[in-house]
Amino acid sequence: MVLDFYMDDVIKNAIKEDINYIDTTADLVIPADQRGSAYFVAKASGVLCGIDAAMRVFALLDNTFESKVYFHDGDALQKGDVICEFEGNMRCLLKGERTALNLIQHMSGIATETARCVAIVKGTKAAVTDTRKTLPGLRALQKYAVTVGGGKNHRYNLSDGAMLKDNHIDACGGITGAVNTLRSKLGHMVKIEVETRNLAEVREALEAGADIIMLDNMDCPTMKAAVELVSGKALLEASGGITHDTLREVAETGVDIISIGALTHSVQAFDISMRIS
Amino acid sequence: MVLDFYMDDVIKNAIKEDINYIDTTADLVIPADQRGSAYFVAKASGVLCGIDAAMRVFALLDNTFESKVYFHDGDALQKGDVICEFEGNMRCLLKGERTALNLIQHMSGIATETARCVAIVKGTKAAVTDTRKTLPGLRALQKYAVTVGGGKNHRYNLSDGAMLKDNHIDACGGITGAVNTLRSKLGHMVKIEVETRNLAEVREALEAGADIIMLDNMDCPTMKAAVELVSGKALLEASGGITHDTLREVAETGVDIISIGALTHSVQAFDISMRIS
Amino acid sequence: MVLDFYMDDVIKNAIKEDINYIDTTADLVIPADQRGSAYFVAKASGVLCGIDAAMRVFALLDNTFESKVYFHDGDALQKGDVICEFEGNMRCLLKGERTALNLIQHMSGIATETARCVAIVKGTKAAVTDTRKTLPGLRALQKYAVTVGGGKNHRYNLSDGAMLKDNHIDACGGITGAVNTLRSKLGHMVKIEVETRNLAEVREALEAGADIIMLDNMDCPTMKAAVELVSGKALLEASGGITHDTLREVAETGVDIISIGALTHSVQAFDISMRIS
Amino acid sequence: MVLDFYMDDVIKNAIKEDINYIDTTADLVIPADQRGSAYFVAKASGVLCGIDAAMRVFALLDNTFESKVYFHDGDALQKGDVICEFEGNMRCLLKGERTALNLIQHMSGIATETARCVAIVKGTKAAVTDTRKTLPGLRALQKYAVTVGGGKNHRYNLSDGAMLKDNHIDACGGITGAVNTLRSKLGHMVKIEVETRNLAEVREALEAGADIIMLDNMDCPTMKAAVELVSGKALLEASGGITHDTLREVAETGVDIISIGALTHSVQAFDISMRIS
Amino acid sequence: MVLDFYMDDVIKNAIKEDINYIDTTADLVIPADQRGSAYFVAKASGVLCGIDAAMRVFALLDNTFESKVYFHDGDALQKGDVICEFEGNMRCLLKGERTALNLIQHMSGIATETARCVAIVKGTKAAVTDTRKTLPGLRALQKYAVTVGGGKNHRYNLSDGAMLKDNHIDACGGITGAVNTLRSKLGHMVKIEVETRNLAEVREALEAGADIIMLDNMDCPTMKAAVELVSGKALLEASGGITHDTLREVAETGVDIISIGALTHSVQAFDISMRIS
Amino acid sequence: MVLDFYMDDVIKNAIKEDINYIDTTADLVIPADQRGSAYFVAKASGVLCGIDAAMRVFALLDNTFESKVYFHDGDALQKGDVICEFEGNMRCLLKGERTALNLIQHMSGIATETARCVAIVKGTKAAVTDTRKTLPGLRALQKYAVTVGGGKNHRYNLSDGAMLKDNHIDACGGITGAVNTLRSKLGHMVKIEVETRNLAEVREALEAGADIIMLDNMDCPTMKAAVELVSGKALLEASGGITHDTLREVAETGVDIISIGALTHSVQAFDISMRIS
Repeated sequence: MVLDFYMDDVIKNAIKEDINYIDTTADLVIPADQRGSAYFVAKASGVLCGIDAAMRVFALLDNTFESKVYFHDGDALQKGDVICEFEGNMRCLLKGERTALNLIQHMSGIATETARCVAIVKGTKAAVTDTRKTLPGLRALQKYAVTVGGGKNHRYNLSDGAMLKDNHIDACGGITGAVNTLRSKLGHMVKIEVETRNLAEVREALEAGADIIMLDNMDCPTMKAAVELVSGKALLEASGGITHDTLREVAETGVDIISIGALTHSVQAFDISMRIS
Repeated sequence: MVLDFYMDDVIKNAIKEDINYIDTTADLVIPADQRGSAYFVAKASGVLCGIDAAMRVFALLDNTFESKVYFHDGDALQKGDVICEFEGNMRCLLKGERTALNLIQHMSGIATETARCVAIVKGTKAAVTDTRKTLPGLRALQKYAVTVGGGKNHRYNLSDGAMLKDNHIDACGGITGAVNTLRSKLGHMVKIEVETRNLAEVREALEAGADIIMLDNMDCPTMKAAVELVSGKALLEASGGITHDTLREVAETGVDIISIGALTHSVQAFDISMRIS
Repeated sequence: MVLDFYMDDVIKNAIKEDINYIDTTADLVIPADQRGSAYFVAKASGVLCGIDAAMRVFALLDNTFESKVYFHDGDALQKGDVICEFEGNMRCLLKGERTALNLIQHMSGIATETARCVAIVKGTKAAVTDTRKTLPGLRALQKYAVTVGGGKNHRYNLSDGAMLKDNHIDACGGITGAVNTLRSKLGHMVKIEVETRNLAEVREALEAGADIIMLDNMDCPTMKAAVELVSGKALLEASGGITHDTLREVAETGVDIISIGALTHSVQAFDISMRIS
Repeated sequence: MVLDFYMDDVIKNAIKEDINYIDTTADLVIPADQRGSAYFVAKASGVLCGIDAAMRVFALLDNTFESKVYFHDGDALQKGDVICEFEGNMRCLLKGERTALNLIQHMSGIATETARCVAIVKGTKAAVTDTRKTLPGLRALQKYAVTVGGGKNHRYNLSDGAMLKDNHIDACGGITGAVNTLRSKLGHMVKIEVETRNLAEVREALEAGADIIMLDNMDCPTMKAAVELVSGKALLEASGGITHDTLREVAETGVDIISIGALTHSVQAFDISMRIS
Repeated sequence: MVLDFYMDDVIKNAIKEDINYIDTTADLVIPADQRGSAYFVAKASGVLCGIDAAMRVFALLDNTFESKVYFHDGDALQKGDVICEFEGNMRCLLKGERTALNLIQHMSGIATETARCVAIVKGTKAAVTDTRKTLPGLRALQKYAVTVGGGKNHRYNLSDGAMLKDNHIDACGGITGAVNTLRSKLGHMVKIEVETRNLAEVREALEAGADIIMLDNMDCPTMKAAVELVSGKALLEASGGITHDTLREVAETGVDIISIGALTHSVQAFDISMRIS
Repeated sequence: MVLDFYMDDVIKNAIKEDINYIDTTADLVIPADQRGSAYFVAKASGVLCGIDAAMRVFALLDNTFESKVYFHDGDALQKGDVICEFEGNMRCLLKGERTALNLIQHMSGIATETARCVAIVKGTKAAVTDTRKTLPGLRALQKYAVTVGGGKNHRYNLSDGAMLKDNHIDACGGITGAVNTLRSKLGHMVKIEVETRNLAEVREALEAGADIIMLDNMDCPTMKAAVELVSGKALLEASGGITHDTLREVAETGVDIISIGALTHSVQAFDISMRIS
């Protein structure tokens, strides 16, 4: 759903990084008109993401490129699955290989890890979301990969959602003042989230009319108390250092959202290989 | 050493992603002329990288920004170390926080993991290098972070080094033919590396005059045999699925280079916080 | 509040359009080192907007440029007011004049017209907002100018707010279904607005849980009925062909928001002159 | 006639502004493969401009997009005319709607107003032209729209025509000196226009050999006297605050050119709607 | 006079080409804080051009860079002249050397050759001009260099001057028709030049009212006849294969302009060295 | 082999330079739908380079453009050869002519001159290479043209090869120290070249283990002595002021590489004409 020409810019940029002006190997040893065919194979099990981007790498290098795609973004992969088969100019297949794999491995890594977290919270009401802890220039594709893995997106950037943190609050003389200031100035389409560290702050945020209350690094009993306190009058987001080990317990407190920075800031590449057939 | 205006492009791009047109929180609740001061603190131990880039984020947002930097790229950090202190326009400090941290955490993550690998091979002749398995648009800063961690850079891109892989070799009728073709066409500044899967290929690559021979996914006894076979007449690079557990043993085979894709494709962010002082 | 380097891109683009490679007049008849001073004077009464952008035009052309600014964005101007005085390289003053005036006249035109609308609804609860009917490449500065005139911003773009129109609704089998689909997929920071054409649709949108209900081209009695029907359980936005003549009456129906496309799609430039002093 | 890839840059920029990374409405409620058809209808009478640009918006979003265009740039539109019919991916039709309309409404607004002015001066020798009072980044498409409306373009920018204003003249010791300096330095393809405020200056400009003499804010009797004085030995341009009310009278003075800044700096959008069929 | 930020784009682009991500030599062997000083010396005699651009290369790499410039654009250089002295970070001096020299040598090469041509025609009325035969992306700086050498600029591009060639003329049914068509559509600031191949065409062009008549590849007697025929009622431009050997004779025919493509399409670099002091 | 989309950027940039917003001639006198056909003819004998780039100019302007190409990059051209025939929209043929010719004439000029140099050294072991003395923004296409003419590429930029010059050496206390420093820090794919001025330096460079030794401005007897001294243990590059007159003698000294800056810094355009058929 990410704009194709946005992705094209990312891909062209990556290709330029990797090729600069020629491929000193393929351009010199492979005949210019040699054709080849290849496929991608999953080297692990997980959730595929980025197949269109990967195929686009080759298409940008070679207008004779053709592919058959067997798995699409969001599909579950088993180790050994052949994801797609394609053919084209042999030089271009070899030139595009690394860039295509770098993209699909990163995006599938995010989708796979997100899906793992979503599976852990299954059956609770909690949604798993990303954060703004993304890598420079890659936010759109990282956030897209989170949704492919079954997660939801937190605000995309500082423009499309207001979140009051300690420092903002201090500058306005408390949560109530800060929320009121925001309400009076914000457009009607923007929600307000307030970061809180204890139940007193949760209560103040609730009374001030926050749309969402973030429970920052609270332990589970406190979060449970917050859920009771708020009882549906605002959304509650758990945040801060949540791991696979603690995720289920956090979800069972009854919070609405669990945001996990590691989904995008500490991505494990998902292993996919390209093989010449 | 990466070009400052290259980094500026990366940083501006990241800021635009994160701010789009305004910060709906800071721009509305923080007085326009409020000043503030803050510092970065290490939340773990490792190797710092990206401090100039992080400070540059704030400087690009605020021409009154001033900083004192206590640790520089390559310095070892202990958990709790105050890395730098800075002051500036309060809105700008808050706007730049996430982008600055995203950069420094990613780059320090790479430097820290590289340093761990370098420590493991210490005392052997093996150098730790990166690969072309980098994230789109971030190769320059990722490769820089590897050197900050004590690693070395493999070729930067397809233009500045020739590496013959299976597919190239098949297209030329064997290693010898492929190397000869390359030698006859390549400029004199470009080295030739040949990927091999067994000792027979190592021998052929050596006789063909490869500058570097890559030992692809070989076991340690085979690599040891390759080291003896080559006995210094070419450089040897071990590559393929090397982990912390196997790294020392690989290094002790006597290879010259150990390349590790995970240094850049599966980065664990290094935890650094910004605190308002 | 708009990012300075975003504005720099707009300004440099505008300067390149206007100068291309040289100024065939100033570069040939004005001595290269001649200095000059000038000022901006209001030729009408209204609200100033874009003074920083205008001054930035000259600063980008001339690093010796210095200015004293007497009126700032949001200040009321009377015809004849001297807005700012500045001096610099004479060639650069003449080269930058048109680009600087084009910016400040457009932005002040928006702020002035917005302020007129805001004045008309004064005393009611209605806020005046813009729409996405902006000019290509100029959205950020147009939306900024609306806030300077006392208006509020509707959603910035399609990413940061959901708005269901007829076509969306038809595709989902009715308002209720569409809202439910959105709720289940949207991140928690995104509000949902539903466009309605009659009271039945208003009721359905309300029951479906829309955050905001847009009353599309309704007459005032209908809007008044909608206000009663909704009675504060959602925000109500009046939209569609509202002019100075009808604006007050619309505001008095009790709606929360009145959006006016003409604020940005049919801008009357505000007249400001530059005079050499 | 404006370069297609210039327009593509303008359009992509506008789309990015409006979509950022996803369309939170269409992407979530419309099935990915749903097709739709729609048309543009004129809501007023005037001159069409920008139909290719508008269709291009959809084509850039959707490579299955197809259109039938019934009216082209320069055609007269009557209220209710169906301008074009098109079909494509439904999500893309909805995503592109606003950007396409913003373009075509702005360009048709300019063409329509230009045509009104041209009609007013019909039968006189006066041509209607634009000025450099254009909006940042939009000069090419605004100037194009003026020609579509039957007007002519004044100089495109400072590089392709020399125009001496007061300040230039003062710096050279009078009109004669300034014109002489220009003649001695300018390439032979560049014309010289001189701005004048009274008949004495008109006479001096004429004698100095100006190609065009601009009559700045003169009343009609003075302009008529200027026409007689010059009697065809240079072109005469009337400029300054000319409205629909005064335009005919100005044209009848016998001037050759009447330049009107409002054609591009104060554009009234021409109302066109998109309807799903 | 060329826009500084236009030049900055050219320079940054050139630096990126030359440095990519690091300087593998200077960055590794020169201490990061070592300072150095250097100077530029002319290795031949000619006309300097590009000194500001060359100094800008270093300034963009090093904000501690300082220079003393002894010769400026347009100054005559004798072999051995020290053009400027400068100091800065030693790594940056070495990194910028090649890019700075590439610029100044190319621009000075153009200025020097132009000055040679101007000297040859000295005493005649003929001006020496460039053409549109420039190198991709370098037109602005090449055309600037021509003026620095004492030449004049022909039209900058296809937008700012009309020139009818055979093909245009054929499409309009002869010179007269083509000129009339242009006159009726062109803005008043644009001149019309007509390319002719014989005296009959010269006469037709003159009668059609061409501003400039180009004499394409005519011999000198024919050009002399054309000069007499036209006798000042239009400008005459000689064009086509004019060399140092024929230039004076062509000038003496009485033509107004002699355009020489080789000034920009076949540039001999002017030799300048950088020496560390 | 240069990346197509890299070339597209160069070409679009060149087209924008040349057309800006319209072609005031073709757009006004040629009917919009007129078709035409044309061909390129060689006006001299040499080596063709840039035919794809030239055809691409027209294709970018006109998606109906079709061509038949009879000679390809690297083919020898005789004066009078018809290189290609093509047809398309007549306006676009005329608009693209200059830009297409500027590209192909420059690239063919480089290839032709390189081929001349390669012919001169034929039978010796010496390869002819370019340098980094290229024109801003054009390095990739200039280096490509050198290979088309039969030359080889020296390092592409400062990142992909290390070359120690005097200044580097002085900063490290001699050649030996500098080479050792580089060896300890460089990645294994990067070669080291050392610039030398006499035999003593050649010997030191050889013993320090330089991969390539550059003989800077040495006379032929000294180069011959260097060849004997080194006797194949490193590559030798002759550099500095080598002309057609001296090239053969230099090649016969037995050096491996002869680098010639003039191949790219002082290019004579190769004459090709476009004729309407």
